[in-house]
Amino acid sequence: MPDPSLLEMFDSPTDSPFVIEHVNEEFTSVCPMTGHPDFGRIILRYVPTSSCVELKSLKLYYQSFRNEGIFYEAVTNLIRDDLVKAMKPAWLQVITEWKGRGGIHSRILADHGDVPAEWKRG
Amino acid sequence: MPDPSLLEMFDSPTDSPFVIEHVNEEFTSVCPMTGHPDFGRIILRYVPTSSCVELKSLKLYYQSFRNEGIFYEAVTNLIRDDLVKAMKPAWLQVITEWKGRGGIHSRILADHGDVPAEWKRG
Amino acid sequence: MPDPSLLEMFDSPTDSPFVIEHVNEEFTSVCPMTGHPDFGRIILRYVPTSSCVELKSLKLYYQSFRNEGIFYEAVTNLIRDDLVKAMKPAWLQVITEWKGRGGIHSRILADHGDVPAEWKRG
Amino acid sequence: MPDPSLLEMFDSPTDSPFVIEHVNEEFTSVCPMTGHPDFGRIILRYVPTSSCVELKSLKLYYQSFRNEGIFYEAVTNLIRDDLVKAMKPAWLQVITEWKGRGGIHSRILADHGDVPAEWKRG
Amino acid sequence: MPDPSLLEMFDSPTDSPFVIEHVNEEFTSVCPMTGHPDFGRIILRYVPTSSCVELKSLKLYYQSFRNEGIFYEAVTNLIRDDLVKAMKPAWLQVITEWKGRGGIHSRILADHGDVPAEWKRG
Amino acid sequence: MPDPSLLEMFDSPTDSPFVIEHVNEEFTSVCPMTGHPDFGRIILRYVPTSSCVELKSLKLYYQSFRNEGIFYEAVTNLIRDDLVKAMKPAWLQVITEWKGRGGIHSRILADHGDVPAEWKRG
Amino acid sequence: MPDPSLLEMFDSPTDSPFVIEHVNEEFTSVCPMTGHPDFGRIILRYVPTSSCVELKSLKLYYQSFRNEGIFYEAVTNLIRDDLVKAMKPAWLQVITEWKGRGGIHSRILADHGDVPAEWKRG
Amino acid sequence: MPDPSLLEMFDSPTDSPFVIEHVNEEFTSVCPMTGHPDFGRIILRYVPTSSCVELKSLKLYYQSFRNEGIFYEAVTNLIRDDLVKAMKPAWLQVITEWKGRGGIHSRILADHGDVPAEWKRG
Amino acid sequence: MPDPSLLEMFDSPTDSPFVIEHVNEEFTSVCPMTGHPDFGRIILRYVPTSSCVELKSLKLYYQSFRNEGIFYEAVTNLIRDDLVKAMKPAWLQVITEWKGRGGIHSRILADHGDVPAEWKRG
Amino acid sequence: MPDPSLLEMFDSPTDSPFVIEHVNEEFTSVCPMTGHPDFGRIILRYVPTSSCVELKSLKLYYQSFRNEGIFYEAVTNLIRDDLVKAMKPAWLQVITEWKGRGGIHSRILADHGDVPAEWKRG
Repeated sequence: MPDPSLLEMFDSPTDSPFVIEHVNEEFTSVCPMTGHPDFGRIILRYVPTSSCVELKSLKLYYQSFRNEGIFYEAVTNLIRDDLVKAMKPAWLQVITEWKGRGGIHSRILADHGDVPAEWKRG
Repeated sequence: MPDPSLLEMFDSPTDSPFVIEHVNEEFTSVCPMTGHPDFGRIILRYVPTSSCVELKSLKLYYQSFRNEGIFYEAVTNLIRDDLVKAMKPAWLQVITEWKGRGGIHSRILADHGDVPAEWKRG
Repeated sequence: MPDPSLLEMFDSPTDSPFVIEHVNEEFTSVCPMTGHPDFGRIILRYVPTSSCVELKSLKLYYQSFRNEGIFYEAVTNLIRDDLVKAMKPAWLQVITEWKGRGGIHSRILADHGDVPAEWKRG
Repeated sequence: MPDPSLLEMFDSPTDSPFVIEHVNEEFTSVCPMTGHPDFGRIILRYVPTSSCVELKSLKLYYQSFRNEGIFYEAVTNLIRDDLVKAMKPAWLQVITEWKGRGGIHSRILADHGDVPAEWKRG
Repeated sequence: MPDPSLLEMFDSPTDSPFVIEHVNEEFTSVCPMTGHPDFGRIILRYVPTSSCVELKSLKLYYQSFRNEGIFYEAVTNLIRDDLVKAMKPAWLQVITEWKGRGGIHSRILADHGDVPAEWKRG
Repeated sequence: MPDPSLLEMFDSPTDSPFVIEHVNEEFTSVCPMTGHPDFGRIILRYVPTSSCVELKSLKLYYQSFRNEGIFYEAVTNLIRDDLVKAMKPAWLQVITEWKGRGGIHSRILADHGDVPAEWKRG
Repeated sequence: MPDPSLLEMFDSPTDSPFVIEHVNEEFTSVCPMTGHPDFGRIILRYVPTSSCVELKSLKLYYQSFRNEGIFYEAVTNLIRDDLVKAMKPAWLQVITEWKGRGGIHSRILADHGDVPAEWKRG
Repeated sequence: MPDPSLLEMFDSPTDSPFVIEHVNEEFTSVCPMTGHPDFGRIILRYVPTSSCVELKSLKLYYQSFRNEGIFYEAVTNLIRDDLVKAMKPAWLQVITEWKGRGGIHSRILADHGDVPAEWKRG
Repeated sequence: MPDPSLLEMFDSPTDSPFVIEHVNEEFTSVCPMTGHPDFGRIILRYVPTSSCVELKSLKLYYQSFRNEGIFYEAVTNLIRDDLVKAMKPAWLQVITEWKGRGGIHSRILADHGDVPAEWKRG
Repeated sequence: MPDPSLLEMFDSPTDSPFVIEHVNEEFTSVCPMTGHPDFGRIILRYVPTSSCVELKSLKLYYQSFRNEGIFYEAVTNLIRDDLVKAMKPAWLQVITEWKGRGGIHSRILADHGDVPAEWKRG
């Protein structure tokens, strides 16, 4: 089940603000209604204040959703909340992009803090 | 015929605003002048206030246009109106993109509420 | 329902063999099990003996499947059989390509006569 | 020769503003200097006030340039003027994109009215 | 765990040979050495003798690998063997394509019977 | 109207056989049934015996179809015949590819002489 | 050597401002340090006041750099200056894009006048 | 090890501000935790005040990271700092894009000075 | 330096022949003439007799070329020879694809044993 | 002018036959009729007997065509002949691909020796 305790941090190498983006092409969870797997892509963007999420720990955190029954909208907001709590970033954005079901594919965008205009679109 | 009673809602999982996008690659209706089928793609974007449209019900609603004779412009405005009435979103955008006829392909964009600048273009 | 009487022929403009290919990007029928629409692409290739299928009549024939409940494999073999009966071609190939369902997309290939090696793959 | 009398209108299905885009992939006219054909693509975008251009009549209007000797810049401005006169749109944009000549390909953009920022770029 | 009893068959709609291809874009299993998930794409091609695999049952069979620790090569050969036993096809081909690990991505091809030259390459 | 007298030849620069391919992206003629323009792409391939077609004369020859009402199949066979008569090539292949009409796009292939296996597919 | 006297003008067909873009895919000059040829692409954009550059003369002007030893940055600024002097445009933008050298490819952007926000990025 | 003394400058050819972009497709360094090589792409953008970085010296500077164990975030900030010190640009932007590890690929953006809105996104 | 002792084998999971392909997108070595790094992509294909190369060991073997000065042609033949010695495959193919140098990019193909026709092209 | 004396050879690193391919994306010569530059891409493929062409010398040889007035067909056959004389390869293939002129782009293929079937198509 989703486990934010897997997330590990390291200190930002600089005091000047900069943008970090990690794109996970291999996310999977389970649809809570049908029990079928969902497959997606997760884009994380943020400006660190003092700490950054370590990449391997982020991967393990994402893998902890593998057998969880959870809706698209809930996944997106939960990841946003877990990462904000862990890193206290200046701003942060989580975008989930889901493979098609019945001819319809979806995208969910959740922000934290004052995401600058140029990133608003996702 | 187009049937908005097919639309079902679920409660938004969060109070903070976030963007939901559903792209239907498999829309078809009928041209009211020629009787030939039209094929298109429908992009729906919105920020929920309290309720979100359930994905399978959205698919069935789109399928209810299958044998309806209706113009591009009317389809777009009707879907916008039906979804606004059903969800009362903070803002909502419907974009329809139509396969070519006689070498011309078309796109229609209809908004509701205060669509932010970064989404205005469609 | 599928109606081969819609097919019209015209005389081939030459006696020397040549290949004709028509690709329909906008085919739709209905899944006989779920009642949901199926969307596909149909590639027709043939070498005429004396008659060729007229393009607009071919479109109307394809449109006659719109509300028919029929499996992928049956659509492909039926179209092959109807066109062979109507045109008596030197050889003919029908390939149907179907949009994904549950993450799986499909392709069916049905031949008539001695399809040359370079076209065998579809 | 270019004939704006071919353009026919229909009433907009709604009073709320919405954007209509028609992309013609198959435009051709003739270079007035060399007599060689020019090939291009025409993007039309507008927000209707009360009337919209009917699609088939638009196609015939574009076809009326087929044997006209006329420069890129003049085509673009003429189409803009003809459509503005016929529809009196809230705003309108015509973009012509021309296939290469001597290794150089061109694009011309002509606006009418207050084209919003998000469409300015073409 | 991989469960071939999930596979269901239906009768081929014709006696003349034809090719069926199902491409699963959403396969996942687990690496038996690291415990990390593997993601892949599976192409199945065959010519039925008398029975065809039903598409939804094929999806469930593929999903039964979700939490199985198994190597690329073993997955490919096991799927080939299970499907050959279930369908007794004229010929059959299974191709698995795996997302990159450490900068290396892989593809495995396993055949059964006399796969014609035009399909040999995968 | 199509005018093969526009075609001019030059002597092949070598006696050893080699392949020449000219692809015209900008062909247009007129549909004899509807009077609407058709747009296409023409691929010409041949091995010269002693003479090669001069490129500018080939362009003018193709332009002579601009206002001719003629079917796809007839265009293809006529170009093949005109070029074979003018050049007497070892072998020659004409492929026409046509933009979509009513969702269907077409391709016609006409050969002369013993086109080698690797080019047969077009 | 670069010769701005090759540039010829024609009168703008309208008084209302519009954007003209010419993209040259086939620019070449010589590196003044190594003597090796450089290959690039030049995008020119401007709003005319009263005169426009004639397309064939622009091509000849670009060809006059063929054997000139000149740096990327200097080419870009020189073309900008020559065209501004010749046309006195409302605004003008020259962008040069250069093929890779040693794994690094480059782009230079030089503006004149008040280039609107939507074009600033190039 | 990273060696900024390799960087050489030349005088800007003009006093008017213009944008220079160099994209290095072939960057490699080493992960300080695993010892495995990292592969990336580095985009450098800046407006010179008086001096520009010479392209070959930039390549050698990038090559000096080849066997350095260093994190993504540190590489990006170090390159930004070294180039700002060497050129004193009006503004400067360094974007690093890294090939995937464990299904996650990353991008880091570091700015110096007042990067205009149109470049902010990277 | 290139170290074939890094290669480890595992037993093939089946006796029936099947094809294995590993594509390394991140190969780098050094040009022995200029000392500059070369970047490439390596495609390995083989049919095992009894043993298969373990993927992580293959990655480490490729990494051992990182600081080796060696020509394209020699890299390709050396990898072919090392892998043939280690695995004794039924057949094996090594293809190296190299990023451009001075506008020229290269590909080298080296085979071992009787590579079937469908793979000959690489 | 074209200067085969620029070509330098090195000894093949192996006695077993293997394929070498060099693709030059940046070829330019001059049209002998109009004096305008031609731009193309040259693909060279061969199996060495004992000597291979050195890459930098090949680049200089190609550059020697820069200001030569010469037809497509003649360029292709001349390069083939020069390289065959210099290397005496087991077989060799030269393919030139030319940017469009007047909407027509061309490709010329010239072989030497017994080019295997899988390469015949170019």
